[in-house]
Amino acid sequence: MKFKAKVLPLRTERVAVVLSHDDAAELGLLPGDRVKVTVDRRSFVAEVEIATEFVNPGEAGVCSFTAERCSIEERCEVEIVPFARPKSVEYIRKKLDGHRYERIEIGQIIKDISDGILSDIEMAAFILANEIVGMQDDEVQWMVEAMVENGERVSFDRGSVVDTHSIGGVPGNRYSMITVPTVAAAGLLIPKTASRAITSASGTADTMEVLADVNLSVDEIKEITERVGGVIAWNAAAGIAPADEQIIRVEYQLEISPKPHLMASLLAKKLGGGAKFIAIDIPIGRGAKIENIDLGRSFASSFMEIGRKLNLKVAATLSDGSQPLGNAIGPALEAREVLKAMEERKWGDLVEKSLGIAGILFEMTGVATNGYMHARKIFENGKTLEKFREIVAAQGGDENVRADDIPIGDKTYTLEAAKDGYVREIDVAVLNEIARTAGAPKDKGAGVYVHKKRGEVVKAGDPLLTIYAEKEWKLDNAIEVATAERPIVVSGMVLEVYGRRGV
Amino acid sequence: MKFKAKVLPLRTERVAVVLSHDDAAELGLLPGDRVKVTVDRRSFVAEVEIATEFVNPGEAGVCSFTAERCSIEERCEVEIVPFARPKSVEYIRKKLDGHRYERIEIGQIIKDISDGILSDIEMAAFILANEIVGMQDDEVQWMVEAMVENGERVSFDRGSVVDTHSIGGVPGNRYSMITVPTVAAAGLLIPKTASRAITSASGTADTMEVLADVNLSVDEIKEITERVGGVIAWNAAAGIAPADEQIIRVEYQLEISPKPHLMASLLAKKLGGGAKFIAIDIPIGRGAKIENIDLGRSFASSFMEIGRKLNLKVAATLSDGSQPLGNAIGPALEAREVLKAMEERKWGDLVEKSLGIAGILFEMTGVATNGYMHARKIFENGKTLEKFREIVAAQGGDENVRADDIPIGDKTYTLEAAKDGYVREIDVAVLNEIARTAGAPKDKGAGVYVHKKRGEVVKAGDPLLTIYAEKEWKLDNAIEVATAERPIVVSGMVLEVYGRRGV
Repeated sequence: MKFKAKVLPLRTERVAVVLSHDDAAELGLLPGDRVKVTVDRRSFVAEVEIATEFVNPGEAGVCSFTAERCSIEERCEVEIVPFARPKSVEYIRKKLDGHRYERIEIGQIIKDISDGILSDIEMAAFILANEIVGMQDDEVQWMVEAMVENGERVSFDRGSVVDTHSIGGVPGNRYSMITVPTVAAAGLLIPKTASRAITSASGTADTMEVLADVNLSVDEIKEITERVGGVIAWNAAAGIAPADEQIIRVEYQLEISPKPHLMASLLAKKLGGGAKFIAIDIPIGRGAKIENIDLGRSFASSFMEIGRKLNLKVAATLSDGSQPLGNAIGPALEAREVLKAMEERKWGDLVEKSLGIAGILFEMTGVATNGYMHARKIFENGKTLEKFREIVAAQGGDENVRADDIPIGDKTYTLEAAKDGYVREIDVAVLNEIARTAGAPKDKGAGVYVHKKRGEVVKAGDPLLTIYAEKEWKLDNAIEVATAERPIVVSGMVLEVYGRRGV
Repeated sequence: MKFKAKVLPLRTERVAVVLSHDDAAELGLLPGDRVKVTVDRRSFVAEVEIATEFVNPGEAGVCSFTAERCSIEERCEVEIVPFARPKSVEYIRKKLDGHRYERIEIGQIIKDISDGILSDIEMAAFILANEIVGMQDDEVQWMVEAMVENGERVSFDRGSVVDTHSIGGVPGNRYSMITVPTVAAAGLLIPKTASRAITSASGTADTMEVLADVNLSVDEIKEITERVGGVIAWNAAAGIAPADEQIIRVEYQLEISPKPHLMASLLAKKLGGGAKFIAIDIPIGRGAKIENIDLGRSFASSFMEIGRKLNLKVAATLSDGSQPLGNAIGPALEAREVLKAMEERKWGDLVEKSLGIAGILFEMTGVATNGYMHARKIFENGKTLEKFREIVAAQGGDENVRADDIPIGDKTYTLEAAKDGYVREIDVAVLNEIARTAGAPKDKGAGVYVHKKRGEVVKAGDPLLTIYAEKEWKLDNAIEVATAERPIVVSGMVLEVYGRRGV
C-alpha cells in the first residue's frame, strides 16, 4: 500500500513507522510487526506502531530519527508491505529453549540490534535468555566479532597497541588516567576508550571530560594515538560496537547484566579500538559487580580464553573492589585527585593500581621484565605527568591545567565520626548514591571525598566524608541520604559484648 | 523540579512523561526510570522518556493518553521528582531467580500492569520468568484474583450463571454462538465474553459483530443477560481484567504464551464476567495451541484445581483441534454457517460440539441428568434459533437476519483436487494464513470455505477450498499462499511404494 510520509515531533531510537488503526488492520498488522518501507527505490525494515489519533488513514508517521536516518521527507510517497519477523527472534527463542547459538545466528541478532530493528521487548528476551541459559566461550567470541563488524573500527599500521578496561562497579576507579600516559610514555600505543557513568557517579569519560574533549571520532582516536601515544575517549561517540549501547540501555531497565554480555561488551570495545594486548581489571568485593572471588577467577579465565580465540593477548587482574579507589568520587574531584597524584608523585592505592596495570602491559609486550618497577620509574621521573598533559592538549584541553585550578562544588557538608574507633566498613553503593544525589555526573563539581578508608584510626569529631554539590537543594538531598544510610562504619575493636546484663 | 506540561501529538498506552536531555540529567534520570508527577495536588507515577528535540528544558511532554487519563492541560504546572522503581520489578527478579510469588507480590505486579506503570521491557521479563520458571496453582489463583480486582466486574443477584471459553487455536471454532442460546433457552444465565482475533482469522467477537454490536459495557452485559438470558460481547470493551490485554500484547511480540498465563487469562475473564459454572474447551492436535494430549490433560486438571480455589465449578473438555470446526473460516462465512446450522437444524461437528458443551453446563447446574439430550431437544425444537435472534436483537442487531442475507466477499477462487483419493491431512495454520491474507478479520467477508474435511473421499476436479475476499489484491496474495502451501493433502490409500525401480 502507498502512504504519504508525516514526520512526527518525537524521536525514538528505533526505526519505526506509525500507521492509523484502519490502515494497520487493512494490512493485517499488529503493533510490533515489521514492514518493508520503500522510498524512492530504497528500502528498509521498520517496526509498526499503531496510532489511535494524529496519524490519518493514508499517512505513515515516522519519528525524526527514522526520517533522518532513512532520508524521508514530509509528504513524500512511501510504499509499505508486511515483512516477516526477523530471523533473530527465532534464534532468541532457540536460546530460551536452552540451545546454543550458531555463529551466523548470534551474528544476525547483533546486526539487527545495531540496525535498530529489534524491539525493546525482543532485546529483553535476548538478555534474559543469555542470563538464564548462558553462553559458551565461542558464542561470546562470535558476539564480540559481530559487535565489532557492525560498527566503526580503529586500526593501526605500526606499533604495539595496548589497552585496559575495568568491568567496573568501584567508585573512583580512575586508574587508567595514570596507566594510559605511563604506558604511552614508554612508546606503546594506547587508544583507550572509556565509558560514561550509567548508574555510577562518574565514568572515566566523565572525569576526563573535566580536562579535555572526549567525544572523538575513530579518525581522531587514531591520529592522536599515533602522534602522542595515547588517548582517553568516550567509546560511544566513536561509534565502536554500537550494539553495546542498545543492549546496555535495556539491561539497565532489567537490572540484569549477564556474564557473557559483560565480557562481550568489554572485549568488543577493545577489539574495535585496535588493541592487541589488553589488561582487564576485575574488582571483587561486597558492593562491587562481583562479590565472590571464585566468580572473579572464572571471569578471568573466560576473558583469557575468549581473548585467545579473538587473537588478543589478555591479562586479567582481580583487585579490591570493596572500597573506593583513592578518596574522590565524582568527575571534578576525581580529575583533581588523579592530577594531584601525578603532580606530587604521591603514593597510594590509586597510583599503585595504575602502575601495576601499566607494568602488566609492559611485561605482555616485552617492554620490561619487571613491568611494575619500569612503570614506577616513569611515574617518578615525571614522564607520566608530562605525557598526560600532551594527551590533554591533543584532545583540546589546557595542557597547563593544575589540580588546584579544577573547580569543584562550593556547597559542602562534612560528616564527622561520632566516636573513637577505626573504619570497619565502607558501603560503596551508598557512597555512589550520595554522590549521584549531590548531582554527579551531570554536575561535574559534585561528589564525595572520603577522608578515612578501611582500617584507618578515627577520633570522635574527625571528618569521615565531605559532600560537594553545585546546588543547594541537591546538597540537602545528599545529606539526607548520608545521614540516613551512614556509609562509613566506625567501630571499636570490640564489636559485640554478651552477658553484660541478663537477657 | 517544576515543569510546564506540553501535550504531544502521539498516543502510547503507558503513562509516561518526556523530558529534555538536560532536565533528565539534572534530575539524574535515565530512560525507563520512574517519576512522581504532581498536578494540582493530585499525583501519579510515570515512566520517563528522554527527548533530544521537541521538548524544551522546563517542559514536560505527555502523550495524549496520559494527558486525558491524568487530567493534564497544556501549559499547566507539574512537579516532577524521581521515584523508586516499582516493587513489582523486584518481584519479577525473584521469579527469574526461581522463587515463588507471594500473594501480595503477584497482586502488585498485576496492579502495576493494569495501571500502565510497568514498561514493555519489564512485562517481557514477567512473561519470560513465568514461562521459564513456571507458576504453581495458588500463584495462578492470586494472579486471577488480582486481574479481576483491577478491572470491571459483572455480578448477578439471582440465577445460575454459567459461561464457556476455548483456549483457542482452531479455525472456525464458533461453537459458543450455538451453546449460548441453547443454554439461555433453558433458563440459565450466560454472560459470554469473547475475544477478537489476534493471530487468527476471526474470534467469536469478530464473528458475532457481523450480526450485532459486541462493544458492550458491564452494565449492558448484566442488563441483557438478566433480560434475555445471554449475551455474546467483546471482553476488552467491557473493561474486565484489563491487565490481560497488556500481557497479551507483549506475549504476541515474544511469540510466547506461558501456560499459567493462558489459564489466568481465561479464568479472569470468566470470573470477572460473574460466572460460577464454566465449561472450558481445550482443542488438541497438530497445529492447535496444544499438540499433545498429555499436556491437554495437565491443563484440564490445573483448570479444575485453580477453579476450585476460586470457588468456580470448572469442567474441561479435550476436543479435536487438528482441523477446523465446521467448514467456514472468517467472520461473515462463520456467521452464515452458524446461523444456517440453527435455521436448518443441520447436523455436523459444529452442532455436536456446541450441544455437547451446552449439555455439560446443564449437568453441572443440575438442569438435566442427560445434558446432551436436553440440549439436542432444545436445538431441534428451534428454541436455540429463537433465543439467538432475541440475543442479536438485544445487542442491537436485526432479529430477522437469515444466513443467506449475510454478505460475503465477492472475489473468490476455488482450489480443486488434482487427483482421486481422500483427504489425509489439513494444515490449520496455513488455512488461517490464507484467510488472514485474504483480509480476515478486518474485511468481514473474507475467509476460506473448506469443502472436504479429513477422511472424506475426493475425485479429481472436486473443489477442496474456496477463498473469499473483498479486494482483488488480497485475493491474489491469498491464492499465492494457497498454491504454494497446499493446506489440504489428498492421498490415495497407498502412501508410498518401494522397490518399483532399482535404487
